[in-house]
Amino acid sequence: MSAAQGLKYIGTRPVRPDGLEKVTGRANFGADHAMPGMLHGKVVRSPHAHARIRSIDTSRAEAMPGVLAVITAADFPDRTNFSFGRKGFNNNLIASDKVLYHGHAVAAVAATSVQAAEAAAEAVVVDYEVLEAVTDALQALEPDAPILHDDLRTQGLPEPSTASTNLVKKQVISKGDVEAAFAKADEIVERTFVTPMVHQGYIEPHACVGSFNEDGQATVWCSTQGHFGVRSMTAMALGMDEGDIRVIASEIGGGFGGKTTIYLEPLAVKLSEKSGRPVKMVMTREDVFRATGPASGTVNTIKIGCKRDGTIVGMYAKLIYEAGAFPGSPLGAGAMCIFAPYDVDNVLIEGFEVVVNRPRVAAYRAPGAPQSMFAGESVIDELAEIVGLDPIDFRLKNAASEGTHAAYGPTFGPVGLRECLEAAKAHPNYAKPLGEDEGRGVAAGFWFNGGNQSSAEVHITDSGMVKIVEGSPDIGGSRASMALMAAETLGVPYERMRIRVADTDSTGYCATTGGSRTTFATGLAVIRACEDVIRQLKARAAASWGIEPDQVEWSDGEARPVPGVNVEAEPLSLTDLARTAARTGGPISGRASLTAQGPGPAFSVNMADVHVDRETGRATVTSFTAIQDAGTAIHPDYVEGQMQGGAAQGIGWALNEEYIYDDNGVLDNPGFLDYRVPVASDLPMIDTEIVEVPNPNHPYGVRGCGETPIVAPLAAVGNAVSHAVGVRMTELPLSPPKVLEAITNGS
Amino acid sequence: MSAAQGLKYIGTRPVRPDGLEKVTGRANFGADHAMPGMLHGKVVRSPHAHARIRSIDTSRAEAMPGVLAVITAADFPDRTNFSFGRKGFNNNLIASDKVLYHGHAVAAVAATSVQAAEAAAEAVVVDYEVLEAVTDALQALEPDAPILHDDLRTQGLPEPSTASTNLVKKQVISKGDVEAAFAKADEIVERTFVTPMVHQGYIEPHACVGSFNEDGQATVWCSTQGHFGVRSMTAMALGMDEGDIRVIASEIGGGFGGKTTIYLEPLAVKLSEKSGRPVKMVMTREDVFRATGPASGTVNTIKIGCKRDGTIVGMYAKLIYEAGAFPGSPLGAGAMCIFAPYDVDNVLIEGFEVVVNRPRVAAYRAPGAPQSMFAGESVIDELAEIVGLDPIDFRLKNAASEGTHAAYGPTFGPVGLRECLEAAKAHPNYAKPLGEDEGRGVAAGFWFNGGNQSSAEVHITDSGMVKIVEGSPDIGGSRASMALMAAETLGVPYERMRIRVADTDSTGYCATTGGSRTTFATGLAVIRACEDVIRQLKARAAASWGIEPDQVEWSDGEARPVPGVNVEAEPLSLTDLARTAARTGGPISGRASLTAQGPGPAFSVNMADVHVDRETGRATVTSFTAIQDAGTAIHPDYVEGQMQGGAAQGIGWALNEEYIYDDNGVLDNPGFLDYRVPVASDLPMIDTEIVEVPNPNHPYGVRGCGETPIVAPLAAVGNAVSHAVGVRMTELPLSPPKVLEAITNGS
Repeated sequence: MSAAQGLKYIGTRPVRPDGLEKVTGRANFGADHAMPGMLHGKVVRSPHAHARIRSIDTSRAEAMPGVLAVITAADFPDRTNFSFGRKGFNNNLIASDKVLYHGHAVAAVAATSVQAAEAAAEAVVVDYEVLEAVTDALQALEPDAPILHDDLRTQGLPEPSTASTNLVKKQVISKGDVEAAFAKADEIVERTFVTPMVHQGYIEPHACVGSFNEDGQATVWCSTQGHFGVRSMTAMALGMDEGDIRVIASEIGGGFGGKTTIYLEPLAVKLSEKSGRPVKMVMTREDVFRATGPASGTVNTIKIGCKRDGTIVGMYAKLIYEAGAFPGSPLGAGAMCIFAPYDVDNVLIEGFEVVVNRPRVAAYRAPGAPQSMFAGESVIDELAEIVGLDPIDFRLKNAASEGTHAAYGPTFGPVGLRECLEAAKAHPNYAKPLGEDEGRGVAAGFWFNGGNQSSAEVHITDSGMVKIVEGSPDIGGSRASMALMAAETLGVPYERMRIRVADTDSTGYCATTGGSRTTFATGLAVIRACEDVIRQLKARAAASWGIEPDQVEWSDGEARPVPGVNVEAEPLSLTDLARTAARTGGPISGRASLTAQGPGPAFSVNMADVHVDRETGRATVTSFTAIQDAGTAIHPDYVEGQMQGGAAQGIGWALNEEYIYDDNGVLDNPGFLDYRVPVASDLPMIDTEIVEVPNPNHPYGVRGCGETPIVAPLAAVGNAVSHAVGVRMTELPLSPPKVLEAITNGS
Repeated sequence: MSAAQGLKYIGTRPVRPDGLEKVTGRANFGADHAMPGMLHGKVVRSPHAHARIRSIDTSRAEAMPGVLAVITAADFPDRTNFSFGRKGFNNNLIASDKVLYHGHAVAAVAATSVQAAEAAAEAVVVDYEVLEAVTDALQALEPDAPILHDDLRTQGLPEPSTASTNLVKKQVISKGDVEAAFAKADEIVERTFVTPMVHQGYIEPHACVGSFNEDGQATVWCSTQGHFGVRSMTAMALGMDEGDIRVIASEIGGGFGGKTTIYLEPLAVKLSEKSGRPVKMVMTREDVFRATGPASGTVNTIKIGCKRDGTIVGMYAKLIYEAGAFPGSPLGAGAMCIFAPYDVDNVLIEGFEVVVNRPRVAAYRAPGAPQSMFAGESVIDELAEIVGLDPIDFRLKNAASEGTHAAYGPTFGPVGLRECLEAAKAHPNYAKPLGEDEGRGVAAGFWFNGGNQSSAEVHITDSGMVKIVEGSPDIGGSRASMALMAAETLGVPYERMRIRVADTDSTGYCATTGGSRTTFATGLAVIRACEDVIRQLKARAAASWGIEPDQVEWSDGEARPVPGVNVEAEPLSLTDLARTAARTGGPISGRASLTAQGPGPAFSVNMADVHVDRETGRATVTSFTAIQDAGTAIHPDYVEGQMQGGAAQGIGWALNEEYIYDDNGVLDNPGFLDYRVPVASDLPMIDTEIVEVPNPNHPYGVRGCGETPIVAPLAAVGNAVSHAVGVRMTELPLSPPKVLEAITNGS
């Protein structure tokens, strides 16, 4: 199915605007920015997972040669009267009274060289009172667990909690009567699943340069998914007006959600303020692992009941999500997604968020959904087996579709789950025979996709080139998709588009690139800005022909009188009208700003074949097929790339990735040698099939496609391993020791 | 007179947005940009004023260590079939067959260090056939003069010229019958005046970095008065589409018209293309003097006749302007301005432009007008003396005013010449007694001011700050004046404005900053963009009150229901509406692009007292008073600064500045030691008085005020010296030898 019928540029696969710069190494990433007189900053990090800071002595560091500034929390706005949330945000940037994880920032230095800064960081003396740490959500909920925040009170309980606790909140999604439903079920499966804390694994560590001017204004260069977000967060941390901070986004070497928040930027600006010089800060890989936000580890208990014919009657989930040291887990999204693929009357989802002595979690691609849906889709798989249905048929029998009232709220418009399931069933990879010790797993995935605020400006050069300006960092090909939508709207070839991600002072507000919102929402702003341009082009053509603007139509990149208007007029192209713009009213520029409504929910179906080495327990994915409803695929290469990338990350999460903490809460594997992300040789070719069910809320049918790809792989691989081994696998990663244990002991 | 009544922010004198950065040295100028891997470029320049290039051997230079590229005209698009004008533009950038002035670029090199580039530039071997040079306009018009361009044909003659010539064009402005008028005159003065070629004297030499990407797109960082102009000129030189070039303007360390054209940028981009590396090029001061565009030297003959009562009946001028080596003198503007202050029925102005073996002239503040008006206002002064009228009264008697049909075309709307003359007459400096050997001179000045294309965008932050984005480099305080006009329009304090001059890819087209157009035209775009914002603010307020947008008014920075609308509504400020923007439709951004119509002509009157040392001939300005109609003075400090700066430059032009060429056309004084610009100790306090006759074509009455200040000082000082010496001085500069000669010999 293609939505691209009648479309000229959308659906083609041209070279990306930023491709050449990235291939040749000309592109500038976070650490590439340099300024005259620039200092280098280093963070002093806690060696303890949980400790009270008795005192910090910076005097030795300050006296060292080349050291121009040392900062601690005392240099930042006093947090005493901050809300709990804002205090936590600031305390995560630089600890005040307590450190809450190994690697937690306690001070920072700026010096004339990286070496001098490192030496000075080592010379900062922190006197800690070491406290007992808790790094596991279940332990953190025990009555005698160490308490991270004395003033944390649980949200969402019937009675407000009064005692200190590590339980951040309880969240409930409910529809129908799940207990009554289970009473009527013929088959019920209930299981508990565990997923580890994992990292997004972006290649480029966090990096920035901060510069504070004597007039109280600051400039920040950084690698980020959202420089407008960096602006407001940095302003919050420093007690500045966001309008006084200009943020310039570099190219980004991977983010996947991990660069939607900030770590270094306020420290760099504060060091710059104290030293009077620009300050550059670049994380090491160890810093990235120890102190930036990973995905929540979870413990999820699922109970699903169905009739003998496979009709699901009730679905229950108890989701426990680790937040890390400060609240902010993606529990809510995990709860929204888990049962979204199913049209079921009785659903209850109870979610619990818990703080533990680990780094504060951050977004990681479809944040929260892979964990919950690993659990949910594993139980679905088991139930299908029990009732003797093909897992695709079982899902088809219960699949959500247009009109389904999802438990998390909306009634779906057109959605593509059925189409994905049918494509999976028809796919040759689903028919090919399995080898010895191979298993095949199927899973559905879901993400609701984001809207939010976006802006764009479009300027036409005298030569008729189209300059698109927007504020969404390009993490997955958005420049190409914006340019294609602009080309389509204007009827002007893609090759005439030039697109720039401008800084926060030079373009309208764009919310952070994430949640699969950008092609949808910023794309909408680009389309509307092009329409603003077309309005002007039509008015100018009309004036030149002596007719009214509404007597002009714009098609195929040309203005022409609407049929029936009696005027002699050769069509005027954008280039024609641009050339004469100076004397027809001046330059041609369009703009649009909007809060995008109606992003399209996106389903996927993934199929994995896994071979299990019965001697070593090593699981190898031998075939992987990703099928996804992207709505209209603006640039299909990118959609396929998103699907392949999400699959690769999901396979890593399923099979190998995990943070390994020792008993004191010290991370033992803070590097890519010991934290095992899949490399090319670990993976098969990942086959993709784009399903296109257009989103009616977008002029070209865009849904958003970046998150969904990572949701189903965990369960698809898990189900495949379960079938290969003959044992239901419930705890990720399915690394050799666990698989060998299952082979050997049957559990 | 103040137009600022009822205005809250316009007319105040707040700190400039860019002031602190410039004071602390943080501001980045042309030479401050650096990139990784950047090379340094140097230009190989002709040692001859006029020569044919037989051959260029770059092989030795290319073989030198660290040299990565050498270019000559052969690396640029073939010029054979170019128009005469385009060929000249390109040949001025880098000579192909002939060099036409000492310092003319013939080749350029790029190497890993400045030293290596200098050495390589010296190693380029150019074989020249030296030709006879002509550096004087009158000599260049002699029948046997050396011819610069074989294919130059004079424009504007009754019969097209067929022979080779150095006369570029003849231009005529005519009104009434000047010969008949002279026949009826009681008094006639006719004299010829000479003005030297002078340099703008900006402190910052031309500097740029050019980077050419493998995808055929280029980026240029440079110091310029107009980065959009740099874009189109660089594109023209390189045969590129302007849309493929992004130009980023640095702060500018003075331009005064001299940075409205380009010299280095296409060379840097071409060197970058050849070397695959970014290339920085920075002129030396000697380069600036030898090879950038000065103001035309002129020879102007004036004849004015009047009645015994002082009524002028006829005015004639023959203006001869040097163009330098290629056509492009400001003869036209000189002709437009010369007699503009006078309401006279019979006017004839004949202008002649001549090429000579000197650098091609460029704009210099009110280009062309100071030279012609020095001549015209000197004769006016002499006639006033002859008929026994005070020079101000003589001018008042003949002054142009609203309704005057100027010889150069327009019928004036409200203009402020009478107001300036009356202010001058009433000024205490006009009444104070003169000392021994002192003379007092009066002169009028005029500039028509520019309109042209401008764009602006305005973005409102969540915190209610106003981000103004525009594309006009700030050479005289335009950021402050834009911010004041935006503050006034929005009704929001100036301190909440933040303004950015964005690059050519990030904002709408703005024509070059020059001609006193920016505060008028870009200001208009900023005002219109603010009105676009206000429209949205009113619509959102209306929506929140459940009324129609046209039932809302915006005043004092707040939306409120128009009187009579029956609704309970507290006023909503910009900050209120910004805070809730996300849920009322998204970010608030406005834009405007326009071709500004109706700039306001601006008159001035200057008074100078000059003391002459009868022993040395040294003339010292002891008092200087600049009075000018600025229309509404948006930021009076800047208007006064423009008036003082123009006076300082005009005094230098009048008394000391000149290019000194030897017989071979070699410039003998290419540096500030020998080319004498006035320093602080050379000047008195320059008193200013702003007259405000609002321009009806601008919402706040702006006329433009940057050019006019330099027009009258030459004649004011010249008239003062003439009175001090008792001899009519006709040849600038009035340097000690000339003044001493006049004192000694009475001529």
